[in-house]
Amino acid sequence: MRQLVVGAAQLGPIQKADNRADVVGRMIRLLDDAERAGCDLVVYPELALTTFFPRWYMDDQVDVDGWFETDMPNDATAPLFTRAREAGVALSFGYAELTPDGHHFNTSILTDKTGTIVGKYRKVHLPGHDQFDPDRTFQHLEKRYFEPGDLGFPVWNALGGVIGMCICNDRRWPETYRVMGLQGVEMIVLGFNTPAVNSQKSEEGAEKRLFHHRLCLQSGAYQNSTWVVAVAKAGIEDGHPLIGGTMIVNPNGEIVAESQSLEDELVVHSCDLDDTQFGKRTIFDFARHRRIEHYGLITRQTGVKAPN
Amino acid sequence: MRQLVVGAAQLGPIQKADNRADVVGRMIRLLDDAERAGCDLVVYPELALTTFFPRWYMDDQVDVDGWFETDMPNDATAPLFTRAREAGVALSFGYAELTPDGHHFNTSILTDKTGTIVGKYRKVHLPGHDQFDPDRTFQHLEKRYFEPGDLGFPVWNALGGVIGMCICNDRRWPETYRVMGLQGVEMIVLGFNTPAVNSQKSEEGAEKRLFHHRLCLQSGAYQNSTWVVAVAKAGIEDGHPLIGGTMIVNPNGEIVAESQSLEDELVVHSCDLDDTQFGKRTIFDFARHRRIEHYGLITRQTGVKAPN
Repeated sequence: MRQLVVGAAQLGPIQKADNRADVVGRMIRLLDDAERAGCDLVVYPELALTTFFPRWYMDDQVDVDGWFETDMPNDATAPLFTRAREAGVALSFGYAELTPDGHHFNTSILTDKTGTIVGKYRKVHLPGHDQFDPDRTFQHLEKRYFEPGDLGFPVWNALGGVIGMCICNDRRWPETYRVMGLQGVEMIVLGFNTPAVNSQKSEEGAEKRLFHHRLCLQSGAYQNSTWVVAVAKAGIEDGHPLIGGTMIVNPNGEIVAESQSLEDELVVHSCDLDDTQFGKRTIFDFARHRRIEHYGLITRQTGVKAPN
Repeated sequence: MRQLVVGAAQLGPIQKADNRADVVGRMIRLLDDAERAGCDLVVYPELALTTFFPRWYMDDQVDVDGWFETDMPNDATAPLFTRAREAGVALSFGYAELTPDGHHFNTSILTDKTGTIVGKYRKVHLPGHDQFDPDRTFQHLEKRYFEPGDLGFPVWNALGGVIGMCICNDRRWPETYRVMGLQGVEMIVLGFNTPAVNSQKSEEGAEKRLFHHRLCLQSGAYQNSTWVVAVAKAGIEDGHPLIGGTMIVNPNGEIVAESQSLEDELVVHSCDLDDTQFGKRTIFDFARHRRIEHYGLITRQTGVKAPN
């Protein structure tokens, strides 16, 4: 038994006008709850400090950069790190990262229980588009404001286990889980901001979006025999609804805990990292069963090439 | 609209004592049903002509080879091919293949509507083990009796679309779907023989096995925006129960038709191959979204290597 008590700290909506101090205050209240619940690790959403700004078209880079953090921790987030250190709780959360040399990433970090950052991940699979798209019912400009992550999918020996991160749309791509699975990942933590309506198919609403969300998390967990912790920013941001569906999935692909609201809400589960072992030794013992000689297209070819 | 009417022709159990002529008779009766239902294609299970013999330990190769076919079509299956040609229905089914040079494969074929074989697939992901395992409640000796397939995961321009095949345990591996997805696959057909109990975890019964089965089919379909047609050999073979769960999954990951029995049963659905286009153009437009520079481990490394 290697129990890791995880708090999946869903955030309700963050409006455009809300400031980071207010949001950090909400994150600290969830951390207080997590401390009382005995959590070892608290996971917050993607872009946890602000509204999901890629829904807004901007062409002035000064406006864009206002949504980014140039340091982490910084003045706005220092109280969260301080409180986490006092509580002895590790953190993971997402934010927009502007590097000293001017690169923009959709980033998440992992700290240890002293509030020291031990891992950084930069979102690899950016959804959406990079120019204003008049055919969409709303914009999704991640490809405009971010570069694809340049760190791959590392995992970390942390918190008594092997921990990995990904962000939002990464969870729809089996490659995400598999690259971490090949490093023995035992828990993948991720945040997401998922519009409750498909901007290119308006009849696809929240129910169908939650179905796809669960399907990807559960299959990724099962097929790599790993825990998956997925945390939403939920609810209506400036008129734009986001799905909830914060959940914890066990290495058998089963949902063991799930949020009930679209507001700030802590979902807690005690995860035994040793539960990953059965699948990794049997049906998904990669060393015995994978046949990489037939997987070549996966890394040789980005897009589709039809047969002759 | 490119409608392809598919009949997923589940077979109930085939006992060890049953002969191939009897089984082919059952397959023809399902084909008769399929013709009446207007099917373009009928898909039968893995190892459709015999009982699932890898549950039996054999050490005399003559006994083993008795379960294999050296030609296809052959005397036993010729009536099925003849009937299919008359009906103008394409076929896919699985059988144990012994090649002229002595190789053993778990194989499936695809014919056109004239009964001509246009595609052959050999199972890549062989589950189980190659020696008698006294710790299991029953044996699963696919690694003893078969070599891993040597043809990769090709797809075929057939029946007005792009068709691929895989077999049973292949469906649990996201690489299977992805390699075909990268060739623009629009429908993947597969057969399976899945024990209703995990031989290494007896508390995992039919319900959980069906959950994993659906999870893999549905995520593979969604993440590659392809139809998936999965066909069981079901029911109790010589005391060993197999799950049913023959089903047709649409490119949105939804189950649109599913068997109701553990017996011979035809599940029919009219599949519009153009339904694959929306996903392939948007969220799973691989050319725009995949990042192969971060997938290297998938083809470079078979087993797990833990981080330092």
